[in-house]
Amino acid sequence: MGAVNGAQAAERVPKQDRSRATRQRLLEAAVACLAEHGWAGSTVSVVAERAGVSRGAAQHHFPTREDLFTAAVEYVAEERSTALRALFPEGAGDRRAVVSALVDLFTGPLFRAALHLWVAASNEAHLHSRVTELEGRVGRETHRIAVELLRADESRPGVRETVQGFLDMARGLGLANLLTDDAGRRDRVVAQWAAILDTTLD
Amino acid sequence: MGAVNGAQAAERVPKQDRSRATRQRLLEAAVACLAEHGWAGSTVSVVAERAGVSRGAAQHHFPTREDLFTAAVEYVAEERSTALRALFPEGAGDRRAVVSALVDLFTGPLFRAALHLWVAASNEAHLHSRVTELEGRVGRETHRIAVELLRADESRPGVRETVQGFLDMARGLGLANLLTDDAGRRDRVVAQWAAILDTTLD
Repeated sequence: MGAVNGAQAAERVPKQDRSRATRQRLLEAAVACLAEHGWAGSTVSVVAERAGVSRGAAQHHFPTREDLFTAAVEYVAEERSTALRALFPEGAGDRRAVVSALVDLFTGPLFRAALHLWVAASNEAHLHSRVTELEGRVGRETHRIAVELLRADESRPGVRETVQGFLDMARGLGLANLLTDDAGRRDRVVAQWAAILDTTLD
Repeated sequence: MGAVNGAQAAERVPKQDRSRATRQRLLEAAVACLAEHGWAGSTVSVVAERAGVSRGAAQHHFPTREDLFTAAVEYVAEERSTALRALFPEGAGDRRAVVSALVDLFTGPLFRAALHLWVAASNEAHLHSRVTELEGRVGRETHRIAVELLRADESRPGVRETVQGFLDMARGLGLANLLTDDAGRRDRVVAQWAAILDTTLD
């Protein structure tokens, strides 16, 4: 590589880094905004301001409101999945701790943000197909992680449905946490169902 | 009772009946409207038109939008509870059929309407306390019915949490049905968890 190309590369890399950092700030701000203000209160401008980015720069990264918010929910879901796998590096360990960590996926701002997006998509045709695809991708990834961390053998009859039902319960627990802090009741339910799941999966 | 009083009573009764019928039409139209169009698209005027009632008459029954929609979700939830008890007049019978019927509570227009109201209340302060109270009342009644129809003995440790977790799962199954028809997957999950629940409760 000549001196000129090297200098161009050196200039290009920090620029790409800045661009990536801007994109990331926008995605994180979008999820926080959706969780706090709902779909009606979440626009590209509001998110750009929250992220400290110009509206033009935000639109350069995400041409439409739908692009921004679907990308944001997907990005944060991936971050959470990575963090969850990192919590259990052996892929095994205490199954009850895994159940609890999986339920935690559904009780924070990401779940609230996703819920607002799902509910908006149920009435808005232009969102429906994109959010349905996104829900499918995120759901399949969550199922894969659950099977892996719970050491569930899906070749046995009923095991797949056992894991699916447990994840449905986790979503329901997320919903029950929407209007009030449901942590006390949830801890008791999770303790009981972690024991039931542990017995059923063995 | 004299002749005059008798005539007044005869006139009053049909008027009360008409008023009750109008109220009922408004409540049913409000739930259908909320399920189809979400909170943003649901106003007293839209519901009045759908019910074939004047806007003034609607406002006579329900002075505010919040009054109308919280009353509607509560009314339809009570209707569904009554219908569910009527399905199992012996209070017992096949526990798997009960599980299936309980899950059905969360997959129709009532659940969609309630979901829209819960999600709107999570961001709108004026709705928050009313919907939180309503959620509590409806949730307690659903729990009572589930305990009764599942013949669950809550004096045994863990049984209360077992029933609660199952109802959380039912809510999660409702959520999974929001954007796509999830009936096929749901039937398999319900069959598996009905068996687990049946074993656990005995």
